[in-house]
Amino acid sequence: MPPLLQRALIGHHVRPHSYLRPATTNAVLGGSRLLVGGCWGRRMWPLVLWALLAAQAGAVLSPPPPKEAARMARYVLHACDWGALATLSAQDELRGRPFANVFSLSDGPAGPGRGSGVPYLYLTDLEVSVRDLQVNANASLTVSLAQTPYCKKNKYDPQNPLCAHIIFAGTVVKVSDTESGLAKQALFTRHPEMESWPRDHNWFFAKFNITNIWVLDYFGGLKIVTPEDYYSVKPYRKLGSLVMTHLSEIMWPNLMFLLDLQSKASLRSSDVAELEFLRICQKTNI
Amino acid sequence: MPPLLQRALIGHHVRPHSYLRPATTNAVLGGSRLLVGGCWGRRMWPLVLWALLAAQAGAVLSPPPPKEAARMARYVLHACDWGALATLSAQDELRGRPFANVFSLSDGPAGPGRGSGVPYLYLTDLEVSVRDLQVNANASLTVSLAQTPYCKKNKYDPQNPLCAHIIFAGTVVKVSDTESGLAKQALFTRHPEMESWPRDHNWFFAKFNITNIWVLDYFGGLKIVTPEDYYSVKPYRKLGSLVMTHLSEIMWPNLMFLLDLQSKASLRSSDVAELEFLRICQKTNI
Repeated sequence: MPPLLQRALIGHHVRPHSYLRPATTNAVLGGSRLLVGGCWGRRMWPLVLWALLAAQAGAVLSPPPPKEAARMARYVLHACDWGALATLSAQDELRGRPFANVFSLSDGPAGPGRGSGVPYLYLTDLEVSVRDLQVNANASLTVSLAQTPYCKKNKYDPQNPLCAHIIFAGTVVKVSDTESGLAKQALFTRHPEMESWPRDHNWFFAKFNITNIWVLDYFGGLKIVTPEDYYSVKPYRKLGSLVMTHLSEIMWPNLMFLLDLQSKASLRSSDVAELEFLRICQKTNI
Repeated sequence: MPPLLQRALIGHHVRPHSYLRPATTNAVLGGSRLLVGGCWGRRMWPLVLWALLAAQAGAVLSPPPPKEAARMARYVLHACDWGALATLSAQDELRGRPFANVFSLSDGPAGPGRGSGVPYLYLTDLEVSVRDLQVNANASLTVSLAQTPYCKKNKYDPQNPLCAHIIFAGTVVKVSDTESGLAKQALFTRHPEMESWPRDHNWFFAKFNITNIWVLDYFGGLKIVTPEDYYSVKPYRKLGSLVMTHLSEIMWPNLMFLLDLQSKASLRSSDVAELEFLRICQKTNI
């Protein structure tokens, strides 16, 4: 359960309250008076709704749990807008040795659910690494959450497995004409200055054709993910499904309690209902 | 001249003032009345000194100019606390292919002038890349200012040469016992959680033994830097030398003007000096 929601639901009430509720549910539903509109709490509804939405949004944008390695790979790639590309050097004195270089990349426009999983690149033959690739197209690409604010925010060292990073192996290939629209949209939306890069450099759209994927996102070493699994998963949970999960797990009993109270109130006129409500408040020591 | 200092020196005065000063210097020394302690300006001395120190600190911490590639290489390495390491894979199905991985590194404790230029690493034989290195120690390491806030702050795309990145080629070797103290200090000061990493992983200190350096920090392609040049330069200008530069270029004439005024004032008693000072203020319309 996201901490923000937890604070909103549980953190506002400390006194025991057994009225109208079985004792066993009180621990979980400690904030229910707030939610049902306690004597001061009715004004808090907008705050609670905001907290709920913020918590859902946070859950949508957070990395997937470590057991879901394929989703983590998709998540980290989409969160990064550059990566380190390793090639086999074609330079005379270093022929066949590894060569690491930095390239901007994008698998789709920014935002949850907009990544394709395909790392698109914008390259020119003037690049040393591209010359390497012309001799041997084998390459490896790595992206890390250390490139995002996530690891610093959570105080994870860049080499800590919880600061997840992904390693791809495969080849770098030019994209076909039919795919170049996708590549262009993916790259130019996240790297707008690319459009103004010098035309005489003969830039072209390329992609990293993934054959192997390793994920390091938890203790216990690299996990292997197949390209099939990688491309079939959804890296972000849908907002709707998260809302439903939280409704069923946490919010539902609170909502039921609220509806119950309101149905009792609706049997009387509004003034009587208000009086009844105040009585309940008094009894429950809110 | 750093913009902050420029604003502090020039931006506070708009009216023409030719009194006591040759007209040709007025443009440069537009803030001199502020600096010599004009009738309201004397209270501004702490602000001016703060602006001066902030400007100097900014100049010390900024990347070196592009023509100084060796300094840039040292600067970028010291600014980064992790890098991407490319090795030749020793895995069965990928033998001899490039493999990119992420490792924390440090060339010295954080802060200007504390970097040695040597990329120290903290490794374990359990790492796939370390197993690669046991078969072939050749490797390449890349670090980029995209790992720091610099490029985003200046709106440089990660692939823009102005978002400088450095490529090292060489070998990864264990550090000797005599060097392990340096490696430990470099790594543990910037990666404090390393001290608590599981002992049964048999961590050891290693370093990237640099044989080749390429710097991409400006338009026109990679620049080659020799390890000799790399290790001999100072990546950060000394604060003292920067202060002297600014004193001689900008502050000196202002200080002379101030000393001149003060020497005139010191010929009288303090009250008379104050009166004289006020007269000068009146004449110069401050």
